[in-house]
Amino acid sequence: MIDFAHRVELVRREMEHSGVDCLLVSVGADLPYLTGYEAMPLERLTMLVLPMEGTPSLVVPRLEAPRVPPGPFEVREWGETDDPIGLVVAAAARPAVAAIGDQTWALFLLRLLARMTETTFVSASTLITELRIRKEPAEIAMLRAAGAAADRVSVRIPRELRFEGRSEREIARDVATMIREEGHHTVSFAIVASGPNGASPHHEPGDRICVRGDAVVVDFGGRMDGYCSDTTRTFVVGSPDPDLVRVHAVVEEAQLAGRETAIAGVRAEQVDKAAREVIERAGYGDYFVHRVGHGIGLETHEPPYLVAGNEQELEPGMAFSIEPGIYLPGRFGVRIEDICVIEPGGNAVCLNDSPRQLVAVE
Amino acid sequence: MIDFAHRVELVRREMEHSGVDCLLVSVGADLPYLTGYEAMPLERLTMLVLPMEGTPSLVVPRLEAPRVPPGPFEVREWGETDDPIGLVVAAAARPAVAAIGDQTWALFLLRLLARMTETTFVSASTLITELRIRKEPAEIAMLRAAGAAADRVSVRIPRELRFEGRSEREIARDVATMIREEGHHTVSFAIVASGPNGASPHHEPGDRICVRGDAVVVDFGGRMDGYCSDTTRTFVVGSPDPDLVRVHAVVEEAQLAGRETAIAGVRAEQVDKAAREVIERAGYGDYFVHRVGHGIGLETHEPPYLVAGNEQELEPGMAFSIEPGIYLPGRFGVRIEDICVIEPGGNAVCLNDSPRQLVAVE
Repeated sequence: MIDFAHRVELVRREMEHSGVDCLLVSVGADLPYLTGYEAMPLERLTMLVLPMEGTPSLVVPRLEAPRVPPGPFEVREWGETDDPIGLVVAAAARPAVAAIGDQTWALFLLRLLARMTETTFVSASTLITELRIRKEPAEIAMLRAAGAAADRVSVRIPRELRFEGRSEREIARDVATMIREEGHHTVSFAIVASGPNGASPHHEPGDRICVRGDAVVVDFGGRMDGYCSDTTRTFVVGSPDPDLVRVHAVVEEAQLAGRETAIAGVRAEQVDKAAREVIERAGYGDYFVHRVGHGIGLETHEPPYLVAGNEQELEPGMAFSIEPGIYLPGRFGVRIEDICVIEPGGNAVCLNDSPRQLVAVE
Repeated sequence: MIDFAHRVELVRREMEHSGVDCLLVSVGADLPYLTGYEAMPLERLTMLVLPMEGTPSLVVPRLEAPRVPPGPFEVREWGETDDPIGLVVAAAARPAVAAIGDQTWALFLLRLLARMTETTFVSASTLITELRIRKEPAEIAMLRAAGAAADRVSVRIPRELRFEGRSEREIARDVATMIREEGHHTVSFAIVASGPNGASPHHEPGDRICVRGDAVVVDFGGRMDGYCSDTTRTFVVGSPDPDLVRVHAVVEEAQLAGRETAIAGVRAEQVDKAAREVIERAGYGDYFVHRVGHGIGLETHEPPYLVAGNEQELEPGMAFSIEPGIYLPGRFGVRIEDICVIEPGGNAVCLNDSPRQLVAVE
């Protein structure tokens, strides 16, 4: 279904455009994007060596070679006592400029720098981002399927899960189970942040027991056929107090403002600004401590980032979250998050559509 | 319980010994080892800047600052439009030599290289490995608890799980559930490799349905209080054919030879050799395609590596796997894996003790 040889051709055009002679890609999503193979994030080096001409080489530990699918590359296995850096250096063939994958371990970059002293190393991010940032229709279809699965989880949470008297960790486990049951192949994360813990946007679910009146931020995602879901809803255990109702309404309005702003031709930073202005007008500007969104695809976070200062214009095929929040230290937090995609016509469509209002849970 | 200030003091001694002026630590286990805080492996930079003198700085994204526990460092938050590399450069204060954490993203190392042109960058691995490789008694206790939990899973598998007619993926999900039920906080991995798939040591569980006569390699691990378990047993669906019985017996003997060899003062490579010789004598040397083991602690794989060429002597406090295997392409694989620790007296004790023989499953 995916034409990896075509992607290799496209990335070579980007390399030519940027004056890069050789691309070196290791752990992270760039490798599966170009080859269909995902490296294990361990201490044994896996690296695609992609020069401008000839067949690319995939340097891979021998014991992992049986995992590698066929693709537009030649597999170069290395055994436990071989030197994988030597294989990379040989396959790279003295490039003047090499671009290295962003998530490559510093350990390996240092070894390459020591062995390829004539080569200038640059970041590979812009090259591959140019491709990955505009999703193909098949990629959008996979994001859509993952988003629909996530929505089924969002709908099941208030129907099936008890919050009062249970710990964040227990609830997070139930959410993880639902993520799998609804068709994701892996669980990426499940944040359950109750009461004052909700004021920590990336809270790790812990032992805190939910009590009546708690706001509970539930932010979760998984991967289906490699593509990610990511959605957030804020629930209330029993009945909300008036402050929570007010803050939630502000976040809902901010999130809607973000969604209404996100169309082709708008700068990424404008989406952030539209949502932020709603929150600032309501007097909570100091408590919205992060950007409004991030791109999504093979990774949960990838370009485009919807953040002040990012002047990149949104284009058809871009997929990203819109997720404003208000975080009141010592009290509670509220966040609402959907994944949106810019369609060929230029409008955005939302891949999440579960109820966004403050839903009560038991 | 853990004295992070003491660890910082110890790592400074290693820095002095190695002529390193500043240590820069980001994602991976070195950071929680030194600070108790684990960075999220995402695109926003988290970095500990640890110079020889003065209070270390932990540069952290503002939205993640509420996650950071108190520790022997000063937190330096950065907002979404700030420059985290600038904060690192300022805190590092022009070191002649900086050591950078092995798993730091290449993206950030390139940016640091561009901004710190007077600084020589070296790998931080040897510095911190010198500490992490010899576990403290509290760390051994946590590895022991994780190992016992893994053993409970190994015992439950043949009692509770049906293999015949079910896919590797379904069985792997059940194993993951048990890993959590037995007290691990997170699941690291669950390999279920049936029939010919067992010949791929790092097989990803897929749609293959188990049938009678299959050998099934089940290799799994989780984390409990930060410390990892990792164990492998090979099962047979119904009755084994004679080849499988023979190969399994060879692997059992090789694994025992490895365990009997691993005592203080022995070189890491000798453990590999002891197990390998058994497999070679039986005529399967070409089919044992990986080293015999790896260290374990905060990470599933860490030094010491038990591999040909590693002349490091085993010492009290070292913890590692012993996991020979035989992989017959197109047919089946067998692996047996335990975690062992060298005790203060110099002998090794096994943290896994579930039955190692070929156990039948339904």
